[in-house]
Amino acid sequence: MSLAVTGALYQGERVGLRADNGLIAELGPDVSPQPGDYLIDGAGTILVPPLINGHTHAAMTLFRGYGDDLPLMRWLEEKVWPIERKLEPADVYWGTRLACLEMIRSGTVRFWDMYWHAPAAARAVGDAGMRATVAAPLIDVDGRSEQMREAALRTLDELSDAPDRIDAGLAPHAIYTVSEASLRWIAEVAAERGFPVQIHLSETEQEVIDCVAAHGERPALYLDRVGLLSPRTVLAHGVWLDDDELELIAERGAVVVTNPVANLKLAVGAVFPYPRARAAGVQVGLGTDGPGSNNSLDLFADMKALALIQKHTANDAAAIGAAETWEIATGRRAPLLGAADGLEVGQPADFLLLRAGAPELSFGELPAALVYAASGAVVHSTVVAGRVLMRDGEIEGAGEVLARALERARGLGLAPPLASAYADELA
Amino acid sequence: MSLAVTGALYQGERVGLRADNGLIAELGPDVSPQPGDYLIDGAGTILVPPLINGHTHAAMTLFRGYGDDLPLMRWLEEKVWPIERKLEPADVYWGTRLACLEMIRSGTVRFWDMYWHAPAAARAVGDAGMRATVAAPLIDVDGRSEQMREAALRTLDELSDAPDRIDAGLAPHAIYTVSEASLRWIAEVAAERGFPVQIHLSETEQEVIDCVAAHGERPALYLDRVGLLSPRTVLAHGVWLDDDELELIAERGAVVVTNPVANLKLAVGAVFPYPRARAAGVQVGLGTDGPGSNNSLDLFADMKALALIQKHTANDAAAIGAAETWEIATGRRAPLLGAADGLEVGQPADFLLLRAGAPELSFGELPAALVYAASGAVVHSTVVAGRVLMRDGEIEGAGEVLARALERARGLGLAPPLASAYADELA
Repeated sequence: MSLAVTGALYQGERVGLRADNGLIAELGPDVSPQPGDYLIDGAGTILVPPLINGHTHAAMTLFRGYGDDLPLMRWLEEKVWPIERKLEPADVYWGTRLACLEMIRSGTVRFWDMYWHAPAAARAVGDAGMRATVAAPLIDVDGRSEQMREAALRTLDELSDAPDRIDAGLAPHAIYTVSEASLRWIAEVAAERGFPVQIHLSETEQEVIDCVAAHGERPALYLDRVGLLSPRTVLAHGVWLDDDELELIAERGAVVVTNPVANLKLAVGAVFPYPRARAAGVQVGLGTDGPGSNNSLDLFADMKALALIQKHTANDAAAIGAAETWEIATGRRAPLLGAADGLEVGQPADFLLLRAGAPELSFGELPAALVYAASGAVVHSTVVAGRVLMRDGEIEGAGEVLARALERARGLGLAPPLASAYADELA
Repeated sequence: MSLAVTGALYQGERVGLRADNGLIAELGPDVSPQPGDYLIDGAGTILVPPLINGHTHAAMTLFRGYGDDLPLMRWLEEKVWPIERKLEPADVYWGTRLACLEMIRSGTVRFWDMYWHAPAAARAVGDAGMRATVAAPLIDVDGRSEQMREAALRTLDELSDAPDRIDAGLAPHAIYTVSEASLRWIAEVAAERGFPVQIHLSETEQEVIDCVAAHGERPALYLDRVGLLSPRTVLAHGVWLDDDELELIAERGAVVVTNPVANLKLAVGAVFPYPRARAAGVQVGLGTDGPGSNNSLDLFADMKALALIQKHTANDAAAIGAAETWEIATGRRAPLLGAADGLEVGQPADFLLLRAGAPELSFGELPAALVYAASGAVVHSTVVAGRVLMRDGEIEGAGEVLARALERARGLGLAPPLASAYADELA
């Protein structure tokens, strides 16, 4: 399958782009379509690399708006966990499909997912045409470590059948929900089999206090001691990391994914210390966190939130610039997150075409326009591995995904009045 | 001119709405179109009241992305003020038309504008079909008080010809750019002729320090002493107000419009003390501030930013809820801002139809879905005074507005490469 885009604006000039076999075959001012190419007229669009969502729980689209305005632990204990006990693979499949729809629409092509029924999530990502690292989740505070480990291994086996676009990983939920023995076991499995590991770390101050009380050291040091701080580790949040922890994380080559909107919304009490992390050389990515706690999957909004909250916290409008923010959101500051090396011949044909005629982009320079003025609505077309997932705002099969996701939400007893009122029309 | 909407969802039920002569004539489950009505099939849409942008400098759309990532005073002195000296009425007209386009598209129907060449802005608002309070700006730090006062009176005269949808007001820029004598003169003119007054107040800590040094009291007390704290006063920002000032503002019946995104972006060092303002009984509205310092006019983004930053600053996820945030953004907590009393028979026919099929709205309850999950892209249709300004995302004449605004930006030497590259296509 080959594809050709003509007349798009790229770094100030008009270019053509051809993709073949999922890779960029040609890119430049003199590129012309070949017979058999799927054609996109790129006139009026801007070619940019796509966004990477470094941390989410995609299927939680189904819980969006359920328990808003509650603090983290109350939201989890009173709202999320009771519903999650009822979840079936089909819930995760359609919830993840819905999340993919929203991500494709707003320019995200790859995400790191941490959720139950991971094989169902992987099937959803595969069917949606996106890329993801889908991880087998682990929680053993209830003492059932053996069962949990077996389930994780089974999940890894099932994930091995996923398409190339999908990587498998391990996702211990957090240091306060997984035993030290299981963390060590995860570190061994990950090292032996080369899997990446995702874990929530240092999201709340209580987590730090509890960790010091239980283990005599702060979370990142504890994680290192159990063998889980490595170049294949993604740490979600990192809000309460101190300088020693940041230096250790940088030294070990682990990635911190910051989720500014979710952190502010749940009022975790602080902001990821980005300027100190940057100074220490930590690799950084950007995530939405789950749509249950954000409640959007439009990474453009999170980009802006990242820049705003870092400027505010540093008391310095220059604390983080637009170009830097754009690099973080496109995964350029953390290779583990899986972005292509760039829009270059031989690289994966993952890219966005943006609406140049949107006033948000027509005035002001990129990337400031992307970070401060745009929302995901500026995305015209989304392409992954040379396949067009959205063209001029249209995603094939979107109506069915929405209808089936609503059906699953109703089945979980989550039916919002709005969805119910429109059930017939939406189906 | 009459209009009928059928089958929209409103407060959980399907309703029809008829507008006649700019007012809501009928609203309820049994409303049917009449012969001659302009018809909108509301199936698949949600009827909600529209948004009010309480503080902006609309024509600064032309400066979007010019001088990003600079602190407030450097941005003003090095970037904005030199360009503003070249501004002509046609720049303000087309810049304001562009801003109106963006506001209509994202559901704002009324705004408070503070900018040069106010009569040109008023013409733009009139032609765009929106509502606004357009104010004659005053700055006399250069000592030319007489000239400035005459210009302001001339502007007020010119504004008196504007359509009913447009109110005139006075806009002393700030206590540090307008002399005490002129502030007193403005207070007299406003009181005598019944004009509202808009002023930037307590945006930076330096302003407070300078005010105490110069006048021996904090900004709100000083403003009160010169006669400018009244039920017809809108204070933009109020970031550094203390409890005594908040109590005085509440007592005088003035409004504070908070601009969370602009405050964070310019790193003014603090956040509007909303919980204390609420406790004191201060009337509060929401603004984007100018598109030069935000850089978006999509008030949905500012709603979310307001809720997030207040939760974060209070260290309490329940510090401000979605319903309260929605009330602020729709002007319900500050009658001076000019919102209709509600979607009721006899009230102005100003309303939005939202896309019920957008995943952001289909899951979760309103207003949480509006505040946390939605962007302006969920707006399907925008209606002001019974006239449809946008229908299914289409705004008549949008292409011309964009092309003419680009032309003016180029004329000011602001031409971004992007706009230049696409000049032919966009025209």
